[in-house]
Amino acid sequence: MNLRIPGPTPCPDDVLEAMGHSMINHRGPEFKELSVKITERLKKIFETKNDLLILTTSGTGGLEAAVVNTLSPGDKVLVVSIGYFGDRFAECAQIYGAQVIKLDFPWGTAADPDQIRQALRNNPEIKAVLVTHNETSTGVTNDLEAISGVVKGEFDKLLLVDAVSSIGSIPLPVDEWRCDVVVTGSQKGWMTPPGLAFVSFSEQAWKAYSQSKIPRYYFDMKRAKNYYERGQTPWTPAVSVYYGLDVALDRILAEGMPNIFKRQARMGQMVRDGAKSLGLSIFPREEVASNTVTAVKIPQGVDAKQLLKLMDEQRGVVMAGGQQSLEGKIFRIGHMGYCEYDDIQQVLDGLKATLPKVGFQPSAVGR
Amino acid sequence: MNLRIPGPTPCPDDVLEAMGHSMINHRGPEFKELSVKITERLKKIFETKNDLLILTTSGTGGLEAAVVNTLSPGDKVLVVSIGYFGDRFAECAQIYGAQVIKLDFPWGTAADPDQIRQALRNNPEIKAVLVTHNETSTGVTNDLEAISGVVKGEFDKLLLVDAVSSIGSIPLPVDEWRCDVVVTGSQKGWMTPPGLAFVSFSEQAWKAYSQSKIPRYYFDMKRAKNYYERGQTPWTPAVSVYYGLDVALDRILAEGMPNIFKRQARMGQMVRDGAKSLGLSIFPREEVASNTVTAVKIPQGVDAKQLLKLMDEQRGVVMAGGQQSLEGKIFRIGHMGYCEYDDIQQVLDGLKATLPKVGFQPSAVGR
Repeated sequence: MNLRIPGPTPCPDDVLEAMGHSMINHRGPEFKELSVKITERLKKIFETKNDLLILTTSGTGGLEAAVVNTLSPGDKVLVVSIGYFGDRFAECAQIYGAQVIKLDFPWGTAADPDQIRQALRNNPEIKAVLVTHNETSTGVTNDLEAISGVVKGEFDKLLLVDAVSSIGSIPLPVDEWRCDVVVTGSQKGWMTPPGLAFVSFSEQAWKAYSQSKIPRYYFDMKRAKNYYERGQTPWTPAVSVYYGLDVALDRILAEGMPNIFKRQARMGQMVRDGAKSLGLSIFPREEVASNTVTAVKIPQGVDAKQLLKLMDEQRGVVMAGGQQSLEGKIFRIGHMGYCEYDDIQQVLDGLKATLPKVGFQPSAVGR
Repeated sequence: MNLRIPGPTPCPDDVLEAMGHSMINHRGPEFKELSVKITERLKKIFETKNDLLILTTSGTGGLEAAVVNTLSPGDKVLVVSIGYFGDRFAECAQIYGAQVIKLDFPWGTAADPDQIRQALRNNPEIKAVLVTHNETSTGVTNDLEAISGVVKGEFDKLLLVDAVSSIGSIPLPVDEWRCDVVVTGSQKGWMTPPGLAFVSFSEQAWKAYSQSKIPRYYFDMKRAKNYYERGQTPWTPAVSVYYGLDVALDRILAEGMPNIFKRQARMGQMVRDGAKSLGLSIFPREEVASNTVTAVKIPQGVDAKQLLKLMDEQRGVVMAGGQQSLEGKIFRIGHMGYCEYDDIQQVLDGLKATLPKVGFQPSAVGR
């Protein structure tokens, strides 16, 4: 099977093999060594000197940790949303009592830093800005550097970043871009099964923590930090995923981050060029298209469900459909993590063979 | 290594092998089938017709889910604590704003149902009772049936049960004992690596949910239920652990629950008898001693750390020390899940050889 959804992503054989490691004492020296070794390498990839803590949860739990460890009920926050996952981030903040000012951009476009500046000017009491770096639902990457230039450079607000499908695959130098909390999940660019979230936490985030009044227990970052200092976690960690990740990080650092960023960029270009050469259209404008997941418009007359079904059954390619308002309107090809050019070629070949069977007429490309 | 801590517990080879399953679409038919198959078998083992939902978290997250999905800030709750994990349950409820009335019993003893009755009489406005079935920190099993007879039978309060180290290993018929929320973790009696919590949720728990005002997002049981009805989870699940658990459940049901309960009881007896034959004393009174984890007193003159160190280094046996006030006073032998009589014999042989090296004199047994 060629698993081309935007996560869980395929894992190399040696990572999967490491998942079968026998159990160890999670309060013993072996776990401590593993945990420190992993954390140090993650900090290197995050390009950060901030604390980085590993939580046993999926990415959403990491995003919840960003919210509940820095905010208080009633705090005004600006949530910049360009899609489904931005909306989720807003929902999470709202549930925990933050007063959410939502800045929505049309799905398929990127956030405009000027409008963020305007929103911050209009609402000087905003405490934090929540933003998605790479919006998995629309295949768009925000210009986080420019956004941070406004949020941190001009207003010095707390910056909480959903980097679930970006960091490790596309550049996000955490310290240089002054991101206070950055969250990702093991099942994305990390070539590792789901179960762990990685959360970096800046000095300013710790200051916010000390003032924060949202209750927290399982996701309490201070507990995680205190236990990490002894080489432990407050609660039993998903040991197997640590072992898988350990192998995956070796692979990642052997390839080298600059090479990974280049490969991801080429991969994104290959998918977009290939799709266009088949007469398809990319959902977002190319300048903002993501290099980890590509959203392609469903052409007029094509049944989206049928396309995904035949690609799976006849070509062994598993892709993702659209979410919420994009259901039936786009399909998505994941290409982060463990992905070779051949995997993409197989997708393109599959599409070429399958599209005519589901009503595709190259002249009637959806716009 | 003979891993004899009370979780993570050792996993059979076929379970570990299944952990290396390649990734699948967590929103596709394969995951749905896996998830339903697992859930149905768990409900059978829980002996419940209640909803049972699987969360990607360790056991503590499951306990947090029990609290945040049923209570509201200001609710009076009775927390029955007989050790460290009872204290943790109380701490969690308190953090989320519950008004905790704590009924503490000396560590090493079980809860007295009469005192629970008295506390409920004295505080008629109590909404829920939180109790640990098997206290891992002291090696004591509470008489949950009798406790439920009081809590449910006489007062009809909401009953939230920490069954992390009990259910699946010792009897806990959820419906018969009318437990509203029952929580366990994959790394205990389930012979599976950590990463998943299983939470059963009764009709009365859902009623409490509809009135509950504690904010919740990642651990929202209603979201979990809604997604489960489509064969999905709200957030990306720890797919690998599902695969491991699938194999473990086959093993568990092949052995049969009555046989497992019998084996666990014999195993507990073997550990206690063996320890006593070496001149050691069991920490709790035998009538309440747990059949999943045994706490043994550190004899006078014996250095606890040294004992654990030599058992590990020279005998390959990894045991657990005491927690909090019991540090240096007891050591603990886990024997739930995948544990054979030979494993226990190895522990006893190891103790026999090691105790004299760490200052043990059989005449000076700690009391």
